[in-house]
Amino acid sequence: MRTQVAIVGAGPAGLVLSHLLHLRGIESVVVERRSREYVEKRVRAGVLEQGTVDLLRSIGVSDGLDRDGLPHHGIELLFDGVSHRVPLSDLSGGRAITIYGQQRVVSDLTEARLAAGGQIFFSADEVSVDVAVPRVSFTHDGQRVELDCDFIAGCDGFHGSCRDELPGATVYEREYPFAWLGILADVAPSNDELIYANTDRGFALLSLRSPTVSRLYLQVDPAEELAAWSDERVWDELQSRLAHDGWSLKEGPVLEKTITPMRSFVCEPMQHGRLFLAGDAAHIVPPTGAKGLNLAIHDVHVLASAMEDWYATGRSTGLDSYSATCLRRVWRVQHFSWWMTSMLHNFPGDDPFERRLQRSQLEYVVSSPAAATTLAENYVGLRWS
Amino acid sequence: MRTQVAIVGAGPAGLVLSHLLHLRGIESVVVERRSREYVEKRVRAGVLEQGTVDLLRSIGVSDGLDRDGLPHHGIELLFDGVSHRVPLSDLSGGRAITIYGQQRVVSDLTEARLAAGGQIFFSADEVSVDVAVPRVSFTHDGQRVELDCDFIAGCDGFHGSCRDELPGATVYEREYPFAWLGILADVAPSNDELIYANTDRGFALLSLRSPTVSRLYLQVDPAEELAAWSDERVWDELQSRLAHDGWSLKEGPVLEKTITPMRSFVCEPMQHGRLFLAGDAAHIVPPTGAKGLNLAIHDVHVLASAMEDWYATGRSTGLDSYSATCLRRVWRVQHFSWWMTSMLHNFPGDDPFERRLQRSQLEYVVSSPAAATTLAENYVGLRWS
Repeated sequence: MRTQVAIVGAGPAGLVLSHLLHLRGIESVVVERRSREYVEKRVRAGVLEQGTVDLLRSIGVSDGLDRDGLPHHGIELLFDGVSHRVPLSDLSGGRAITIYGQQRVVSDLTEARLAAGGQIFFSADEVSVDVAVPRVSFTHDGQRVELDCDFIAGCDGFHGSCRDELPGATVYEREYPFAWLGILADVAPSNDELIYANTDRGFALLSLRSPTVSRLYLQVDPAEELAAWSDERVWDELQSRLAHDGWSLKEGPVLEKTITPMRSFVCEPMQHGRLFLAGDAAHIVPPTGAKGLNLAIHDVHVLASAMEDWYATGRSTGLDSYSATCLRRVWRVQHFSWWMTSMLHNFPGDDPFERRLQRSQLEYVVSSPAAATTLAENYVGLRWS
Repeated sequence: MRTQVAIVGAGPAGLVLSHLLHLRGIESVVVERRSREYVEKRVRAGVLEQGTVDLLRSIGVSDGLDRDGLPHHGIELLFDGVSHRVPLSDLSGGRAITIYGQQRVVSDLTEARLAAGGQIFFSADEVSVDVAVPRVSFTHDGQRVELDCDFIAGCDGFHGSCRDELPGATVYEREYPFAWLGILADVAPSNDELIYANTDRGFALLSLRSPTVSRLYLQVDPAEELAAWSDERVWDELQSRLAHDGWSLKEGPVLEKTITPMRSFVCEPMQHGRLFLAGDAAHIVPPTGAKGLNLAIHDVHVLASAMEDWYATGRSTGLDSYSATCLRRVWRVQHFSWWMTSMLHNFPGDDPFERRLQRSQLEYVVSSPAAATTLAENYVGLRWS
């Protein structure tokens, strides 16, 4: 079997890449280890940058997004018991974020790919990659498939194996000394906008998945066991960390509860020969800046343009500089995510000096238009160059 | 002997306070352990914020400053071998910094105080402070003097003893794992504006004292001995760290060479009963943000207004909130100084991830107008509230 671009992974990066290539007349085949059901139910991020929304619209995959997506024009920063609004759109030339679950994005994209005749092999076993040929091999419905191609796109996430095919890549990594305990709750969000809270008890985040489903997070020790966190304990802690005057947190049935460690990770370069990594396969950010999905979309936007140029003209300049182009944004986003994370969490063993710096930084961000703009322009997403 | 305000220390904080009080009809006496000659020759900071310049003008102590001060409207950030100008004035509504040595400020203020009949006891021995009375006692020309007063202003610097009179004060402190080796050189500055350089060999700063005297700094290990740094070695290292295309560093005779450790320090509160600390007695910042002198001037501006209000109306609101008012700016400046320091120095044992974040931050500061504005507005000094 042969295609032009073999894409490993049917997450947002792989699917958007496949669709972008399709719209440019380039054939691709997507190979995914998991089942379609699993991929479409996997709960992940839910904050789309303006650039991500614009791209999904431009490729015609925005019916659901336009119907159910919730544009947000600000976020709140809560500290010392007072909540301060950061007017994202006012500070960023009218740009906004849109709340729309990643699993909805994946589901919309899968449908669009299949409707356009795209080929996705779900539940592919024993996937292996041979960059030299290049070829992706896998077992599907008991049959061994050898997929020859011009290029391989490694969109198989942080735990994927494509990254192993980059000899001599440098890995940059940072583990944070805390995790996020997240719940999905069957209750209307208690606030119109996201609330990021810095408290002496640790960080908390009020977010949402839809007008009837809340998403809430607590900073916890990475060694915490879910079993130690009854629903009641979670709500009590959320009540305590999110409390502020004239506002109350509505509780509801907990639909899901998870603990996620926080990590920064970058693999450099993001390419080797005919193999190109995109999204979580190449980089992970802590979720505080809500950037993982958006960064993945930017990667494949760059990659699709570079491939289009190669197929149309034979020029490899775009492909050659793929990694360097992506990494500029990757490091900007890494820095922003680290900055948000550092400003909002309690670091175990933090000295009191550090805590005062954090407080001063928060006060500065909500009082200086320039400082608020640095938050806003990064949060809605710096313009793609 | 009696006065209204006894001021310990004839540095910028003590002298400006004394003159501010004088202009408001309040008597003060300044007591200084060192000789006049020593104080006026002590080489210290040389970058005045716009607010400091405005205040010195408003109290009529700006003849020297207006004649010899060098207004600067930008600084340069040098990294990856490329220098980027941050247009301070364009980004801060026309505000600027002025290069004028601290010893000139002290000398001008001393002259102004004496011309106005102000009393300064230089070379005072065995200075002791009794907050309860309140009283400052000292020996001068062999005579013991007991100076009774309404208030004591502790402007006696980081190594002064007034801070010891604050029972139960909390100290916030941070030592940085590097020091600055500074030279004063008899050569015209090689650049019109200051150059802050981040290099793999460590930080360097090109500054100036006057049109004919350069001031240059190198990040070094705090354990370094001056003896290990011949003039030649210092120049070689400066040449290496400051090198960039189309520019060269002029060398000249080294007039002075020092190594200064870097520290952040805050004492909270800054007051107890009738004793008020101001300037370095209460807080120290690393010199990267050029803030120490400016913060001291802000403190005494707040203190003089509060005392004026007390003498005029008997209201103690201003005095009661002196510490809280000052500390807001102190922590803003601490954060800014930490931010500049972190962005520009090599931290020993820094992981490569950290180094990439630093690079990304520098690129962001020189490419985002909002980010550049956060540097500019802090560097020229946020407006006094």
